[in-house]
Amino acid sequence: MSERVVVDFRTEPRRYKHWKLSFDGPVATLQMDVKEDGGLVPGYELKLNSYDLGVDIELYDAIQRLRFEHPEVGAVVLTSGKERIFCAGANIRMLSQSSHGWKVNFCKFTNETRSAIEDATAHSRQTWLAVVNGPCAGGGYELALATDRILMADDGSTTVALPEVPLLAVLPGTGGLTRLVDKRRVRRDRADFFCTLEEGIKGQRAVEWRLVDEVVPRSRLAETTRQRAGELAVRTDRPAGARGIALDPLERRVEGDRVAYAHVTCAIDRAHGVAEITVAAPTAAPPADGAGIHAAGTRFWPLAVARELDDLILHLRTNEEEIGLWVLRTTGSPDLVEAHDRALLEHDADWLVREIRLYLKRTLKRLDVSSRSIFALIEPGSCFTGTLLELALAADRVFMLDGTREGDARPAATVRLTGLNFGVYPTVNGLTRLQSRFLDEPGRVDDLKGRIGEDLDAAAAAEAGLVTFTPDDIDWEDEVRIAIEERAAFSPDALTGMEASLRFGGPETLESKIFARLSAWQNWIFQRPNAVGPKGALKVYGTGERGDFDRRRV
Amino acid sequence: MSERVVVDFRTEPRRYKHWKLSFDGPVATLQMDVKEDGGLVPGYELKLNSYDLGVDIELYDAIQRLRFEHPEVGAVVLTSGKERIFCAGANIRMLSQSSHGWKVNFCKFTNETRSAIEDATAHSRQTWLAVVNGPCAGGGYELALATDRILMADDGSTTVALPEVPLLAVLPGTGGLTRLVDKRRVRRDRADFFCTLEEGIKGQRAVEWRLVDEVVPRSRLAETTRQRAGELAVRTDRPAGARGIALDPLERRVEGDRVAYAHVTCAIDRAHGVAEITVAAPTAAPPADGAGIHAAGTRFWPLAVARELDDLILHLRTNEEEIGLWVLRTTGSPDLVEAHDRALLEHDADWLVREIRLYLKRTLKRLDVSSRSIFALIEPGSCFTGTLLELALAADRVFMLDGTREGDARPAATVRLTGLNFGVYPTVNGLTRLQSRFLDEPGRVDDLKGRIGEDLDAAAAAEAGLVTFTPDDIDWEDEVRIAIEERAAFSPDALTGMEASLRFGGPETLESKIFARLSAWQNWIFQRPNAVGPKGALKVYGTGERGDFDRRRV
Repeated sequence: MSERVVVDFRTEPRRYKHWKLSFDGPVATLQMDVKEDGGLVPGYELKLNSYDLGVDIELYDAIQRLRFEHPEVGAVVLTSGKERIFCAGANIRMLSQSSHGWKVNFCKFTNETRSAIEDATAHSRQTWLAVVNGPCAGGGYELALATDRILMADDGSTTVALPEVPLLAVLPGTGGLTRLVDKRRVRRDRADFFCTLEEGIKGQRAVEWRLVDEVVPRSRLAETTRQRAGELAVRTDRPAGARGIALDPLERRVEGDRVAYAHVTCAIDRAHGVAEITVAAPTAAPPADGAGIHAAGTRFWPLAVARELDDLILHLRTNEEEIGLWVLRTTGSPDLVEAHDRALLEHDADWLVREIRLYLKRTLKRLDVSSRSIFALIEPGSCFTGTLLELALAADRVFMLDGTREGDARPAATVRLTGLNFGVYPTVNGLTRLQSRFLDEPGRVDDLKGRIGEDLDAAAAAEAGLVTFTPDDIDWEDEVRIAIEERAAFSPDALTGMEASLRFGGPETLESKIFARLSAWQNWIFQRPNAVGPKGALKVYGTGERGDFDRRRV
Repeated sequence: MSERVVVDFRTEPRRYKHWKLSFDGPVATLQMDVKEDGGLVPGYELKLNSYDLGVDIELYDAIQRLRFEHPEVGAVVLTSGKERIFCAGANIRMLSQSSHGWKVNFCKFTNETRSAIEDATAHSRQTWLAVVNGPCAGGGYELALATDRILMADDGSTTVALPEVPLLAVLPGTGGLTRLVDKRRVRRDRADFFCTLEEGIKGQRAVEWRLVDEVVPRSRLAETTRQRAGELAVRTDRPAGARGIALDPLERRVEGDRVAYAHVTCAIDRAHGVAEITVAAPTAAPPADGAGIHAAGTRFWPLAVARELDDLILHLRTNEEEIGLWVLRTTGSPDLVEAHDRALLEHDADWLVREIRLYLKRTLKRLDVSSRSIFALIEPGSCFTGTLLELALAADRVFMLDGTREGDARPAATVRLTGLNFGVYPTVNGLTRLQSRFLDEPGRVDDLKGRIGEDLDAAAAAEAGLVTFTPDDIDWEDEVRIAIEERAAFSPDALTGMEASLRFGGPETLESKIFARLSAWQNWIFQRPNAVGPKGALKVYGTGERGDFDRRRV
């Protein structure tokens, strides 16, 4: 398992190996130009603009920076920096040498990154446009599918293709199948044919089948790109004259089994397979106005917490596979969190505040789709207020200590709702976590709106349905310990399937279909001997042999 | 693999080993009383009312007969015939000795059977009530969850439980997780706790958590059952005084690789892994009125075809795993199919006609969720009209021969829409197959309504979006042959995942979530060493050992 490297998700443009970011007024251009020998782990060459996790980490960073550092950008052109290829998709040798867990985690991150492109288009009003200037296959086409509009060169060699099924015996698992029928609404029989076609589809037929939006001759590609990007850019509401804020390097200390950021800390208990994560409230009031928020930049508590949690989640998922339970705690002043939440609510017309809210939304969604059990512990001194209360609502179970603790002078724990709990942080099914929680009685969400700002003690929180169990001081220790030990004893796989099934009741969206359904099929196929066995298609790819399949249909 | 028996899905009450059906006016009672040594294959004992495919085949038959043979029944009580147990769920030894394919196919059929209970409740107005009169675990509780109302004995031992995760390292995969959060809308944190509890939940807490609807002391269980069933029965619109029609034994001839019913035939081409299925139109006009339909009973063509196709699909899925492609053809008179469709439309208020429409709906849904590729071939002499056109709309690809064939005097093929294509046969996502087909332009469905009864030739059908390809006589042979051979060469698993993803665009329902999402997770887990490896929980169950898990989260 050559992937036993510790992956760091932090990067910045001057360290990019694989992407080139350039700007022309309101239009940014992100060129994919993958460095063949720049793989994240040894063992493969990133030929033909194929990608691995390292390539995607840079892409993710670029998406973030375009949003925060470039308020003036209204359209982003995603294209290839290579002469003869757009993108060949995920690197096959990388996949075939990777463990099952690595493959699945890789796909989850790439899926989230593609969703982030759609989120930027829809909510940051930074519209992404793919300019397909060479063969575009598999994950390459899935990347294009995540943009709002696909422009393709009309020449002899440029095609779009999803050749995974015929070539590799796996699925286009980064949203491709779902986006074909649910986003672009390609007719299912055409989608079926397309997904079995190694060579892909080009030219007018690709437009007719809705696989791309427009084809133009090579000779007019640059000009049409400029024109289309310009048209998209003018539709933005982002402020052309504003200055972005710099996403300074995120500081993090790793000491043994402890990871510490400014506000978020994580202590790993390897014996129990538990990550104890604590999020601290701000220690000072928020800036008095929008200008103060801009001046604070990454030091503004909500943005700092989003960045820290985001990085921690990615770190734990990728580098701590055996830590199956994340225990979430909070600490600090509910009043200061509420004040920050109020700032995020009041300045919602400010582009930067909008970005921060969206970033918190995406970070909380990462929690929801993480294949880890999540418990929240609400104890004296905790601060599950507003934005931080979402951590508890994202948890599989919430334990709240009823009353005070012997020998602890702090008052009994309370939780507090803010306006941000009612619409700003939808989860992947499109509902807020409160709505998801009360599918049986939607009216309860309205009732809770009337209780914004109230301190709810354990009895009140239980009555309101916000917490699962409320042991008192006498029972707390045992009850929590047993729950944690029990969780650690269950099959990690069964828990993953169970959590994926219970977390997303109610309606479905493109995103929930990708994370909860398409990924499950892909995971299944990634286990099948027909794909990954010694004679599986993924294993023999490139050797000249064809996969030798067990023909039984399951 | 002890399961290499040929399974026959045809049965009848006097052959039941495991169920007792009794009647008291408008209330029927179906008692589960599984015969321990009555397993379908050797190697396990069906203790504690646990079930295998054989038990479920009888359940399915009972559901069908209650609908067709008992118009007077408005409520069905599902309960246990044993003293101390309701149902312990699917038999674990059976699962642990079964191949992956057998497990998945078994779960698919049990899922369809539970959906049939919900369909009977919702649409046949025969409301199912579970009376849980002893411990009810795993698949036992999932069976209860499929009914409209769950009444539970309030005693020391009766509980409901989903102990799959803690005991077996698999999921409650027969809809349990989905029905918890999406049907009964149990709060997700409570569902999480409940699903990790070996011992289950009983009494008032089960009611409070919405796991059951009502608990009553043992001493009043019989009386309350009568009362509740009576209340449900009076809400029906089924005709108390009507006579049912007998579901006579379904005749079928199996000769070598050929299966033939009265109207449906299937020839298996083992070399190519293809089942060539042909459905014949009726050869005479339908009965002139409702009475005539009742008199015809199972000889009424639409009912006969539903039964035959249903049986064939189940046979092929279970007994012909290596036949990965089903090629559908039709033959006969479009006018006669249209006349039968008209009869089904005109007599929609007749309870029997309603049942026949619902049965056709369910049978067509079986096609949609079958893990087989489906092609439809429309040629001269074919009859893709109305109900039979749904076969083409269910297919992954539709080939229609454009024009006539050399040496064949028959006119060019046409297809014809009837009123039944516009709402009577929704698929598992709640949309008709036409709506699912035109997610991009819903208006096209309305346009097509204006063309009911028209004969559409290949050009018109292609223009209307009803068919995928329309080769002419010169190209037909090669194009179809290549498509079939190509399909046979792909990985069966990748095709299953691809088809499951492309067939169900658009909205989601309880059913689509169960078939397209929960099942995918279950399939994945059924492949994981933590469940099925030599030290997996499913393998060591009953030995006193605990599963030894790879702790890496995926």
